[in-house]
Amino acid sequence: RADGARLWATIHETARFGGTPKGGINRLTLSAEDGQVRDWFREACEAAGLTVGVDALGTQYALRPGQDMSLPPVAFGSHLDTQPTGGKFDGVLGVLAGLEVMRTLNDAGIGTRAPLLLVNWTNEEGSRFAPAMMASAAYAGDFTTDEILAKRDAAGTTVAEALDAIGYRGGEAVGERAIGAFVELHIEQGPILEAEGKTIGVVEGGQGIAWFDGRIEGFESHAGTTPMPRRRDALLGLSEFALAVERIALAHGPSAVATIGEATILAPSRNVVPGQVAFTLDMRDPRSATLDAMEAELREAAAEIGGRRRMTLALSRIWRKEPVPFDAGVVAAVEAAAEGLGLSRRRIVSGAGHDACNLAGRVPTAMIFVPCKDGVSHNESESATQGDCAAGADVLLQTVLRLAG
Amino acid sequence: RADGARLWATIHETARFGGTPKGGINRLTLSAEDGQVRDWFREACEAAGLTVGVDALGTQYALRPGQDMSLPPVAFGSHLDTQPTGGKFDGVLGVLAGLEVMRTLNDAGIGTRAPLLLVNWTNEEGSRFAPAMMASAAYAGDFTTDEILAKRDAAGTTVAEALDAIGYRGGEAVGERAIGAFVELHIEQGPILEAEGKTIGVVEGGQGIAWFDGRIEGFESHAGTTPMPRRRDALLGLSEFALAVERIALAHGPSAVATIGEATILAPSRNVVPGQVAFTLDMRDPRSATLDAMEAELREAAAEIGGRRRMTLALSRIWRKEPVPFDAGVVAAVEAAAEGLGLSRRRIVSGAGHDACNLAGRVPTAMIFVPCKDGVSHNESESATQGDCAAGADVLLQTVLRLAG
Ligand SMILES: NC(=O)NCCC(=O)O
Ligand SMILES: NC(=O)NCCC(=O)O
Repeated sequence: RADGARLWATIHETARFGGTPKGGINRLTLSAEDGQVRDWFREACEAAGLTVGVDALGTQYALRPGQDMSLPPVAFGSHLDTQPTGGKFDGVLGVLAGLEVMRTLNDAGIGTRAPLLLVNWTNEEGSRFAPAMMASAAYAGDFTTDEILAKRDAAGTTVAEALDAIGYRGGEAVGERAIGAFVELHIEQGPILEAEGKTIGVVEGGQGIAWFDGRIEGFESHAGTTPMPRRRDALLGLSEFALAVERIALAHGPSAVATIGEATILAPSRNVVPGQVAFTLDMRDPRSATLDAMEAELREAAAEIGGRRRMTLALSRIWRKEPVPFDAGVVAAVEAAAEGLGLSRRRIVSGAGHDACNLAGRVPTAMIFVPCKDGVSHNESESATQGDCAAGADVLLQTVLRLAG
Repeated sequence: RADGARLWATIHETARFGGTPKGGINRLTLSAEDGQVRDWFREACEAAGLTVGVDALGTQYALRPGQDMSLPPVAFGSHLDTQPTGGKFDGVLGVLAGLEVMRTLNDAGIGTRAPLLLVNWTNEEGSRFAPAMMASAAYAGDFTTDEILAKRDAAGTTVAEALDAIGYRGGEAVGERAIGAFVELHIEQGPILEAEGKTIGVVEGGQGIAWFDGRIEGFESHAGTTPMPRRRDALLGLSEFALAVERIALAHGPSAVATIGEATILAPSRNVVPGQVAFTLDMRDPRSATLDAMEAELREAAAEIGGRRRMTLALSRIWRKEPVPFDAGVVAAVEAAAEGLGLSRRRIVSGAGHDACNLAGRVPTAMIFVPCKDGVSHNESESATQGDCAAGADVLLQTVLRLAG
């Protein structure tokens, strides 16, 4: 069993890197704060006797030798970056519970046949650089390293520059590390486990995701002199489109969701009718066909609004991640571990994207969920109990032991 | 008669200060570019034999002596600051036509009984610092100098700091300068003169304006896991409110207008449901009672949307300028000047706010409008003809001669 109190203390110890007054964390990937928590993580891993490597996209790998070094390691972990309005658990729990697994095995003097590998993936959140989960996607071969290095944030900084700025462009080629299986512990980030009073979610897969960049071109004009019917107000175009996005997602509900997370008026001024707006759109559903249908309806709505309001409303899809089923064997190992520990549980599909969804394309993979308060995540008030975090770490430990022998 | 070709050349000469690739001007008040055009203006005035002073809010006054120096000067001018998406004529025409009046009188060796005073008012546009027309409002006694010096832009810089940064915090007390009458030439910024084929607008007054700061507090949550009905999406709150603003203005039409010019999601991220939005609202009508009615309806809409969507939608009024009637005597002088020149004309009410609307509270005031292309202003494509600009300068010259003797 893991030491739940030590895990809890470690979570709160690292919460100072990017900690916010409201008790959350603002630790965007490859920021100075992300550099600090990475340094902390390397030292903590080395103190636990692990050997830490860094790949060309900054992903950290901490290895514990196995009795049979010819076997590929059983890997686990998650991410230490957060949203700008992030909480203390999203990603962090999976990495620090992995550290707790290593520490517990050390304390108990337990060795495994296969080596164990704890991973901190770069840019899981996708807030600073799109897409989300980019380093694990490159690991799985969905992007080349150079494609990812060239991605830019809103300020124009590339991933390569951001890695260099914090000294985390490592020497290992991305994807070179062998991994035999991957298990990721995470808070659910949704309301289901809490509502049903279950401690463990045995995650069977992740839903599909599509990301878009949008652009509206109306016409700037004087707020005091331009009669209402003559206006080509890009913010009103966005407003109608945002409500259409909500309507379309509701119509495909209850599983479908769609969100305009960013929206910016270009050269805004109090007394200028907005002429141009840039925005982002995030759309999800567990069914690939529903993503297709929603996208078609969104494009139709954009064309209708743009035509009626005499403006262009352009949508460009920058990322699509198909729904991902996890490996039946690893899912069964998670289920058996939870059962062995006598924990209440249910099968569940992930609403969030996770590095595990990318790993699943290359190695047998599954995930473990624990509840979070009110299903809230990507919010500074995100919260989970010490008991549930400890239970998650126990399931992770037992799953890893089953897989690594 | 003014030299229309010289005026046209001068307008294009100054367009380089803050000139944009699209042919507009981005010269926010008290920016480095505003400092450059002020330096240019001082030198041009001095070259025309004028004595230039600067008051504590940066307003520039260029004096041409009169035969009777005991008379208060007849003043004219406008502003050299622009919107971020500003054009070459808004404000600029009034100042540079004033310079052309001075040059023409010099060339013709004409003296006036009363002295003449050409003014470049600080921050007419109100884009960087609110409210608009702040220096002329302080001149008229609507604000104290200290109140204005303490106003902050979005970056937190005060007017005092911005004045110091470009060296334009002058020694004259604001409001100290005597002014006997004020005349402002401006492009109409609306479509009426052009539509009716009239060259001159004899402006009888300005409509009322109210400015608000708005704030929506919803709740940040995960874009992938938060079911649509559980969301408290502040951008959707804004979207409904923006469409309500449009509906309310249309219902009070055709004179009423209302605009959300700025809107910002706090800590935005592609995969976070927006939790907080800040925005501005500009509302106008020539009738004071209509402003009251619109404000009441806007507050009702905000409360209804906020209640239904479980978020707060707060509106705080930061400025209200009542409708302003101009002085009958000065209006008549403008009318007579246009008639004397044989120019087609009509009476008109200004949709935009102008420094003249503030001056009218203290001294006899009127304005002269000339047409602009398609009624477009606050846009880089803003345009007026050389002929109309020259006609406006002629009417300004003749009006000034009538008033100054
Ligand atoms: N787990 C998580 O919040 N990942 C961020 C990527 C996403 O938006 O789903
Ligand atoms: N003339 C002009 O555009 N003034 C700016 C103030 C306003 O918004 O009316």
